[in-house]
Amino acid sequence: MLGRLIGVGLGPGDPDLVTLKAARAIEGAACVAYPSLAGGDSFARAIAADLIASDAHEIRLDVPMTVAREPAQAAYDKGAAEIADVLRKGTDVVMLCEGDPFFYGSFMYVHARLKQDFQVEVIPGVTSVTACAAVSGRPLVARNERLTVLPGPMNEADLRNRIAGAEAVAIMKVGRHLQKIRSVIDALGLTAQATYIERASLPEQVVLPLAEAPEKAPYFSMILLTKGADPWL
Amino acid sequence: MLGRLIGVGLGPGDPDLVTLKAARAIEGAACVAYPSLAGGDSFARAIAADLIASDAHEIRLDVPMTVAREPAQAAYDKGAAEIADVLRKGTDVVMLCEGDPFFYGSFMYVHARLKQDFQVEVIPGVTSVTACAAVSGRPLVARNERLTVLPGPMNEADLRNRIAGAEAVAIMKVGRHLQKIRSVIDALGLTAQATYIERASLPEQVVLPLAEAPEKAPYFSMILLTKGADPWL
Repeated sequence: MLGRLIGVGLGPGDPDLVTLKAARAIEGAACVAYPSLAGGDSFARAIAADLIASDAHEIRLDVPMTVAREPAQAAYDKGAAEIADVLRKGTDVVMLCEGDPFFYGSFMYVHARLKQDFQVEVIPGVTSVTACAAVSGRPLVARNERLTVLPGPMNEADLRNRIAGAEAVAIMKVGRHLQKIRSVIDALGLTAQATYIERASLPEQVVLPLAEAPEKAPYFSMILLTKGADPWL
Repeated sequence: MLGRLIGVGLGPGDPDLVTLKAARAIEGAACVAYPSLAGGDSFARAIAADLIASDAHEIRLDVPMTVAREPAQAAYDKGAAEIADVLRKGTDVVMLCEGDPFFYGSFMYVHARLKQDFQVEVIPGVTSVTACAAVSGRPLVARNERLTVLPGPMNEADLRNRIAGAEAVAIMKVGRHLQKIRSVIDALGLTAQATYIERASLPEQVVLPLAEAPEKAPYFSMILLTKGADPWL
């Protein structure tokens, strides 16, 4: 009997925003895997820390953050091979994922490498999009409104075109793209509708009107564009 | 001291997909409120049933499903007034919400009516979008991909334009709009990339290629359009 690969969404960062199902899967896991970026601490592991059994086998995927894809691909190849070794012994592997496993995350790279040979289960998690809306105090989408989720690294022209034709917008992975995104939103006259959120749900969380956002943003930051009025009354 | 209005996201339906924070808020609530549609049972209450204290005061918002908005508005006016009465006595009110409170839900109508006068907290939940992706077994978005969330009731021309310019797409509230959506996706040649999901995470869940979807879809159904290939290797 082969073990199963279980991708577990951990939510945006507050350990209390882990689901009951995810908490149970982690507590019962004999082996957990998680990514860490560029040799840093693993954010995923930090969220789940209190749930991991002290004798669990841990597989750490050290993913270099380079523009070239090959170094990251090699890291995923190595991590997937380590996970496969455990699965072949009949032990399930719980892979810890910030947010949701199928929504912009490292899990997909492991999934792509192992799904042909092993059974996979995905436990969805709270995404940063709704977590940011919650702390912003502004509804995201209602009725027949559309939501567009855009990654901050998109080029300026594409970003402008996509935002101009949209209703509610969530811009992910703002980080070093903050100034580019701000100038697009300013040029479109939408700054008054924009909220800047950093590390939603964590103690160091920042929520500000975009006009008051800092000069530098961390990787885990987001900009939400929502209607100022209340069309919901 | 006034009570606080707490909007609690319950996730897509499986009670195990409630977060630890939401479970705690519900278990400790002296008063819970929830919507029920057109006199039917409350889906939100059903998800949270095992967590609600037996002596909790319950406020039910009976929302008629009519095309005209006035009857629903009157129901939200009445419900918000009942909730306000409890808040004025200094008791917190936990409003139960399927999915996430700020992502297409009844909570926004209550929030709009009470946020001026009372403190509000929102606990985000797992949305049906990532829950459907999880059970479909297909990654939703990676790297610099865009995600577009569209409501099924949109008119056919708008739907076609939005899908044609999109990458990953989630179409919500499919229900009686299934045939219209299918013909749009067929005409765009995207049927092979489309998955139909009904009641994700519940025992009666259905996951099918769109080509094999039933003739009639319930309100809680979704279509996901994702890339067939694995650009993630």
